[in-house]
Amino acid sequence: MIKSYCTGVIGATGAVGQELLSLIEKRNFPIKELTCFASPRSLNKNILFKGKEIPIQRLTENSFDEIDIAWFCAGSKISATFAPIALKKGCIIIDNSSYFRKHPDVPLVIPEINAHALKNHPGIIASPNCTTSIMLMALAPLHRECKIKRIVVATYQAASGAGQAAMKELEQETQAYLNKTTFERSVMPFPYAFNLFTHNSQLLDNGYVEEEMKMVHETHKILEDDSIRISATCVRVPILRAHSMALNVEFHSPLSKEKAYELLKKAPGITILEDRNQNRFPMPIDASAQDSVFCGRIREDSTQANTLELWVVGDQLLKGAALNAVQIAEALIKG
Amino acid sequence: MIKSYCTGVIGATGAVGQELLSLIEKRNFPIKELTCFASPRSLNKNILFKGKEIPIQRLTENSFDEIDIAWFCAGSKISATFAPIALKKGCIIIDNSSYFRKHPDVPLVIPEINAHALKNHPGIIASPNCTTSIMLMALAPLHRECKIKRIVVATYQAASGAGQAAMKELEQETQAYLNKTTFERSVMPFPYAFNLFTHNSQLLDNGYVEEEMKMVHETHKILEDDSIRISATCVRVPILRAHSMALNVEFHSPLSKEKAYELLKKAPGITILEDRNQNRFPMPIDASAQDSVFCGRIREDSTQANTLELWVVGDQLLKGAALNAVQIAEALIKG
Repeated sequence: MIKSYCTGVIGATGAVGQELLSLIEKRNFPIKELTCFASPRSLNKNILFKGKEIPIQRLTENSFDEIDIAWFCAGSKISATFAPIALKKGCIIIDNSSYFRKHPDVPLVIPEINAHALKNHPGIIASPNCTTSIMLMALAPLHRECKIKRIVVATYQAASGAGQAAMKELEQETQAYLNKTTFERSVMPFPYAFNLFTHNSQLLDNGYVEEEMKMVHETHKILEDDSIRISATCVRVPILRAHSMALNVEFHSPLSKEKAYELLKKAPGITILEDRNQNRFPMPIDASAQDSVFCGRIREDSTQANTLELWVVGDQLLKGAALNAVQIAEALIKG
Repeated sequence: MIKSYCTGVIGATGAVGQELLSLIEKRNFPIKELTCFASPRSLNKNILFKGKEIPIQRLTENSFDEIDIAWFCAGSKISATFAPIALKKGCIIIDNSSYFRKHPDVPLVIPEINAHALKNHPGIIASPNCTTSIMLMALAPLHRECKIKRIVVATYQAASGAGQAAMKELEQETQAYLNKTTFERSVMPFPYAFNLFTHNSQLLDNGYVEEEMKMVHETHKILEDDSIRISATCVRVPILRAHSMALNVEFHSPLSKEKAYELLKKAPGITILEDRNQNRFPMPIDASAQDSVFCGRIREDSTQANTLELWVVGDQLLKGAALNAVQIAEALIKG
């Protein structure tokens, strides 16, 4: 008999929590019992799971007494407060927030890339930043063949990274723009309808925003190679839920585009999508609600030796968050 | 007495033509007579110029008999056919299309950068590609200080580059998306509402699209330096009329970010726009309908020596097209 688990989802009504619930149902994760937690304003809501209404619960110090595996999808503050409590109760925590990602004892895992890091975990496993996950899905198979020296990346990031409210605000603000009516924003710092802006994470002293530095630190940790140099520009574009990125990648030795296509074609979780006759490459609408990360437009950059240009698009809520967190749990129970 | 000119605008009802008419009125270009040309489907329209209704005319072999200066804003085919005719009649042609840009005898001019190239022109002067113009407004002042070695650029390009119909289609398609109704596109090759895609210019054998190679060739010609290496990724984003770009620029010698700011602060046609406390950098809505090209977020790229990251945004219809074409004419008549 397959073992089944008492599971908890923290942030069950959020954009990532909702996708996670849908994934564990669809992928038939072995669940004995499911408990859903959310902030007080969601307490009157129910979650429909496998045809059953599950009431939302409030997170307390005793919430984890009966839970084997908990997915934290409610941001750093909640993870900081409640993950240690859950840990003491013997619960395994899969954390979507950034809170534990840099902790030296906490593995930061993309199962297709570094499932080995799950060995000897301390009870907490961190799931990476969405942009990093999507980028590394395409780069790890290449890095295994030819070590990466330097990456210059520009991102085109969707509203979903800022949550369900940001996605709704983008639609509402766009509707107001088209209606020529005023709109009062409450989530995004700047107008978003037909507009774009630097990623709204903290600007650091080195001139990079936090999101950009996450791509550096998390890449180093996941690929276990601190020598990889990364300069990122992260930009919010008026897209709903898939992140795109233009990657200029220098390797330590030659890697032809043919070899790169060959490696990515057989890489798990990656789909090559292109029709050169139609000038058709991955787009956010291709990746939205899809598990796969889409890659295409691989070009040899003739301006520098050993350098490729790649175009990568992935669903921010799935491989960028919920799917990866579910895959971590699947890898853990598979052992 | 100031000399005034018989002028013609070809493509007067298009997005660039309309901006150009508005600019020559606002900037008080010395006009003796203005003739407006457009395609047959616009023949029943009038153009309002300085309070006077000007009838649209059809372009014929005799259209240029009385015209001193003609702005061509109607695409390569019209320029190819009618510029030689206009030239024979002694008319000076300022061409917004790409048709003559690579011609060795035709100067390709951004007046702030290479007005000297206007000397000994053969009667035709080309105005550069919009993305190139906007990029070079920020890079030329830096290149004069420290020669540029290599540029990696990713663009965020607006609908306006594909004309008025594309702008309208983006709004209509977005409205249909929000209404959950179907929409039949006629301009763009791919869904554009809350979506983005590789720039819809021809894909070349080297894997780059034409727009990306324009940035290479036109930069070489304008900066008179074929040694500059450029790898570009051009992307259409759902923005109406301003192009943004993330530039990673390697110089042959060290250039501090402080020096870069100092140089750009005094560069004509450039506005530094940023508020680091608010994580506020140039956005398309800042640049829309503005003459200036906006620059900010200059960072030293610590992953490579002598390298800066810059963020640049400019109105595609103004400095990217109509404004530059008017400035070329102003420079010519100033002599």
